[in-house]
Amino acid sequence: MARLVLAVFALALSSAPVFAGGVPASLKQSGLKLMPWPAHVRLHDGRLALTDQFAVEVTGHPGPRVYDAATRLLQRLQRRSGIAFDQHVVTANSTGEAAELVIKVRRPGVLEIGEDESYSLHIDSRHAVLTAEDGLGALRGLQTFGQLLQSDPNGYYLPAIDIRDQPRFQWRGLMIDVARHFEPVDVVERNLRGMAAVKLNVLHLHLSDNQGFRIQSKVFPNLTGLGSRGQYYTQAEIKQIIRYADDRGILVVPEFDLPAHAVSWLVSHPELASAPGPYHLYTRFGGKNPAFDPSNPETYRFLDRFFKEMAGLFPAPYIHIGGDENSGSQWDNNPVIQAYMQPSITSDTALQAHFIQKLAGMIRADGKQIIGWDEILQPGLEKGAIVQVWRGKESLYKAARAGHRAILSNGYYLDLLHPAVDGYLDDPIPPGTHLERAVRRNILGGEAEMWGELVWPATIDSRIWPNAAAIAERLWSPRDVHDVAWMYQRLRAANLRLEERGLTQIRNQGVLLRQLAGQYGTEPLRVLVDVISPVRGYQRMATGHYTIYSPLASIADAATSNPWTAIQFNEWVDRFVQRPDADTEQKIRAQLERWIANDPALEALIQPSPALHPVKPLARSLVTLSRIGLQALDYIDQEQAAPQAWARQTTSDFLQAREPAAATKLRMVDAVEQLVVMALKGGRSIEPDAARDEGQDSE
Amino acid sequence: MARLVLAVFALALSSAPVFAGGVPASLKQSGLKLMPWPAHVRLHDGRLALTDQFAVEVTGHPGPRVYDAATRLLQRLQRRSGIAFDQHVVTANSTGEAAELVIKVRRPGVLEIGEDESYSLHIDSRHAVLTAEDGLGALRGLQTFGQLLQSDPNGYYLPAIDIRDQPRFQWRGLMIDVARHFEPVDVVERNLRGMAAVKLNVLHLHLSDNQGFRIQSKVFPNLTGLGSRGQYYTQAEIKQIIRYADDRGILVVPEFDLPAHAVSWLVSHPELASAPGPYHLYTRFGGKNPAFDPSNPETYRFLDRFFKEMAGLFPAPYIHIGGDENSGSQWDNNPVIQAYMQPSITSDTALQAHFIQKLAGMIRADGKQIIGWDEILQPGLEKGAIVQVWRGKESLYKAARAGHRAILSNGYYLDLLHPAVDGYLDDPIPPGTHLERAVRRNILGGEAEMWGELVWPATIDSRIWPNAAAIAERLWSPRDVHDVAWMYQRLRAANLRLEERGLTQIRNQGVLLRQLAGQYGTEPLRVLVDVISPVRGYQRMATGHYTIYSPLASIADAATSNPWTAIQFNEWVDRFVQRPDADTEQKIRAQLERWIANDPALEALIQPSPALHPVKPLARSLVTLSRIGLQALDYIDQEQAAPQAWARQTTSDFLQAREPAAATKLRMVDAVEQLVVMALKGGRSIEPDAARDEGQDSE
Repeated sequence: MARLVLAVFALALSSAPVFAGGVPASLKQSGLKLMPWPAHVRLHDGRLALTDQFAVEVTGHPGPRVYDAATRLLQRLQRRSGIAFDQHVVTANSTGEAAELVIKVRRPGVLEIGEDESYSLHIDSRHAVLTAEDGLGALRGLQTFGQLLQSDPNGYYLPAIDIRDQPRFQWRGLMIDVARHFEPVDVVERNLRGMAAVKLNVLHLHLSDNQGFRIQSKVFPNLTGLGSRGQYYTQAEIKQIIRYADDRGILVVPEFDLPAHAVSWLVSHPELASAPGPYHLYTRFGGKNPAFDPSNPETYRFLDRFFKEMAGLFPAPYIHIGGDENSGSQWDNNPVIQAYMQPSITSDTALQAHFIQKLAGMIRADGKQIIGWDEILQPGLEKGAIVQVWRGKESLYKAARAGHRAILSNGYYLDLLHPAVDGYLDDPIPPGTHLERAVRRNILGGEAEMWGELVWPATIDSRIWPNAAAIAERLWSPRDVHDVAWMYQRLRAANLRLEERGLTQIRNQGVLLRQLAGQYGTEPLRVLVDVISPVRGYQRMATGHYTIYSPLASIADAATSNPWTAIQFNEWVDRFVQRPDADTEQKIRAQLERWIANDPALEALIQPSPALHPVKPLARSLVTLSRIGLQALDYIDQEQAAPQAWARQTTSDFLQAREPAAATKLRMVDAVEQLVVMALKGGRSIEPDAARDEGQDSE
Repeated sequence: MARLVLAVFALALSSAPVFAGGVPASLKQSGLKLMPWPAHVRLHDGRLALTDQFAVEVTGHPGPRVYDAATRLLQRLQRRSGIAFDQHVVTANSTGEAAELVIKVRRPGVLEIGEDESYSLHIDSRHAVLTAEDGLGALRGLQTFGQLLQSDPNGYYLPAIDIRDQPRFQWRGLMIDVARHFEPVDVVERNLRGMAAVKLNVLHLHLSDNQGFRIQSKVFPNLTGLGSRGQYYTQAEIKQIIRYADDRGILVVPEFDLPAHAVSWLVSHPELASAPGPYHLYTRFGGKNPAFDPSNPETYRFLDRFFKEMAGLFPAPYIHIGGDENSGSQWDNNPVIQAYMQPSITSDTALQAHFIQKLAGMIRADGKQIIGWDEILQPGLEKGAIVQVWRGKESLYKAARAGHRAILSNGYYLDLLHPAVDGYLDDPIPPGTHLERAVRRNILGGEAEMWGELVWPATIDSRIWPNAAAIAERLWSPRDVHDVAWMYQRLRAANLRLEERGLTQIRNQGVLLRQLAGQYGTEPLRVLVDVISPVRGYQRMATGHYTIYSPLASIADAATSNPWTAIQFNEWVDRFVQRPDADTEQKIRAQLERWIANDPALEALIQPSPALHPVKPLARSLVTLSRIGLQALDYIDQEQAAPQAWARQTTSDFLQAREPAAATKLRMVDAVEQLVVMALKGGRSIEPDAARDEGQDSE
């Protein structure tokens, strides 16, 4: 199946040499806000007007997914345009002699990795035709169709266009860790809607960890009875999630983390542990990582029964068994385990491999293949096992060279709160990577990872989105689609469309700001939040303060990794310092003046609310740097080098401005510094470094 | 039980004569934002500071509800203050020698109407003590405690205070119609959280109507199989809802509407209908109202089995059987039914009474009593039946005089989109109502009704809240708590607190505005939306355009029945025309100028978005009237009567401004007209009419 996709892709490229080497500027300026950007786009003059007569017909053998998706498309188009269509539901009976959208599908398709997801879309002024070999391709094409809706004062319309499209990678996943903080069914469902919107096709649920066991086992009810604090999916609920995902062409892959990260299993089954219990669910993160006892035959009997039950519950042909971060210290200290290892198992690593092999065998007997993190890649790992890579691309290629299919997660950790550009530019196979064709084929794709230590239902969407959309484009679109400024324009638009699916990443920021300020009018605070973002990586967790009960409703939880005002300001400054022009200077000045003008109202909001007091240094620095930026522009306008003494005076202000406060940082400091550097050079343009070139700011 | 409540209430009044006749001005100005306002409040100097040492201890025999509620209180206080408490969970083991909040409860209590919900709360600078006879009272008191949290630059605290409180009425309900538009479990759960916050204690679910049957029957699976379009609660889900409600001291009462409003039953069971089928689920509202065949013995056999199943599912001692709006026309046209009526049943009304009696009997045999709408009140209705009144208070008193317990819904229809003040001032037993004590005791309380024709999950909260909070105060608080301006101040604060519970009435307005405008920055549009509200009553439905598929995402869906800016503006004008003062005039001028200044940005938002074009007349009128208002103030400042000719010229502007557009109306027109009238009188103060006195505007 993968071969077919590649063939189609090659065909698309060969018939459109004009697009080789990236997207032409005319398309970037066309106003199309597609994401992920399709493999092949040709825009024409003309438009298909959206009216209340808009109708959809499906021909061929589409299967129920396509009808459901077409019906949902009708609803979305209606809501966005306010036009009530005569047609409400798309069914096999929807006659459509004059249908505005005809969907032609040859076969329903099977929801599996490597299935043909290609489609082509033709729109002219009379009608639109979406053609797909497979129902899954039609689903992807319907998302593209919805993204094409535009308006001007004369009405809503779709532009005349020809699109041929297929994914670059087969596996485009999102992992949600529901173990650290549980996420109820509706949170998962709205994220499935978001995934469908950007053509992601695998939902990986991290269902067990030291803080909780999140799925009901009818064979071992104490797993949740004692290991979940009452927060878990019943089997009826998980079936609902699987059905909901399947309807959107998304495969659900469950992860049960073993042999370590195992506290939530061992609370109810301490006899299977490598050290005596009792075990209690962790309320903190990190810490010791108890593991199953691989020498105990009962461990395998237990896991065999458990996985047999889960294999029956999840239709996906994979079960993720974790396999990560086992320190081995419990094994080292257990004489029975040490005896078990004699004579052939010579290290903890080998014992882990032994354990994973036994697991893989029993899961294979249930008709499934295992997936595991990097650590499972050891000699003897069965070829069918898939390696999910969190450590780095060398692990990815190593696994692929060893004959395993592999998925990249490194670089796509959403919880590290990097700006969208970081994941976006992290190509699984960057140019210049030398991989044999067969090795390359083993690289299935990638997955965005939402680890759950510092998120809860009110904030998780704002950590997943829109960054997962940028990663989705990386995994779907041709490699040479990587213009950052253009990506951010489309990401802004995609983010707004995602909100229509019920995702809360935009609306809930307002909720947290109102709560922090204790009042309705929080615009001055939003101005600040739109120029800061949370500290990155594990800095916040490194404080050690956090537990599963921590109130995650501070300014760091309201702030996001993509502060749009700062991103835009940084782009302006980048452009200006490279090639100064009056228009850009005016935009920069106006922004600096807005920040200064905002300050009194901001201070008035902060003062009465102790929960906001930690952001005071950021508010002060924003004003101070804005003034420095204006001074720099004044010097630049004078076309004489600014005095060194003046620049030296700003040093402590820059130092202060780079300090985190309230677990957040100002994200326009480097840009102001560039203005100062430019002023010192008498206003001559300067070369930005590579990071700044991408509109980024330093950590 | 009711008698006990009355006794406690009498005691409270007798020991605090100072509060008889309403709440003293000092308390109104104290900044306390409690809602519903307690029966008895005495504020002291001093405060209890909130620190990370804050701890809760429970003594006595509280039952699990109180522990759960106290744990949730900890979470809310943490999130609002950002303070991470050492205590995470309140359990029976929570030792609390030095607990800042001690909850003393004598017994867990039983979740039933009339149970003792009284509590008293004492807070001084060292600790707080919440005392309740019953666990339900403790739940109510914990809500009050949470509402007392305040902050100033020095920190978060609770004021020193003494409160004694109990409800005026036993039945304080919210009905959600999940039949017209289905509302998923998470929508119901978040509304249950909102209900708990304002001490409502009955959730009435309207589970069947012509558009859908919304609960799984295992005995008759085709009820949802054919009658729900796949949208219904499974029995596991309804049990989850019941448990969720019970944990918050809220009773769930199911309604199965009979004998009319019955299409969704008859789709799968046409043999039980009074006219031949087939029946199809309605997609529109209103229209013919098919009814069960009361002459068919199979009808009763079917209903007996059905209600037996439901009686086992819902623990509440009541089953609501609807009984409303049966036209009888199907009965008139069915000769078998006409024959069945011979000789003793002489009218459709009598036949309906006959049917209801048989139903009541079978439901009594299942251990439950029936509730029904007004129409069930007919001779022969068994005394245990409860009458829910949608027609008017005379029906309420009539039912109560006939010996039935009765609930008022008339005046509390949330779907009619009246401002909160309307329900608030609609007292079930207004002063001067002469009812014998026994009759009065039959009046259980009232219910806010959320009929579902024009709501969906994205908008339903904004129709329920905050208006249901004002009705909750009407039903809980003493009758003499009815100061409208003060209510609105507290309602604004309550609305903000409700948002913390996950309710979406504030945040989703932004979502709809962004969707309509197709961009992020919608503040100019919000300025307009905050001075308009949807047309009231059934005007929107009367157009006949709406179906269950209609896109309910227009400006009328984003607007609410309480446009705060207009409410405040109207209050200022009321005050000014009665007693002109420079400060208020300045506020009015500033608001008028803001509306004018907003217009260019508003027009820029509207123009490119056809979905917004229908609001253009409102935008124009807002500017026109703002200019007229400023002219009027200029005349008033000159202390000479404005020219009649000028006033005459404004007539057409006022006529235009009163026209609905986009199913909404401007809500500051009367106020500007008052300014014009005042200007004509040479700036002399004028007497407002009663409606305007309450800060209202005319429809």
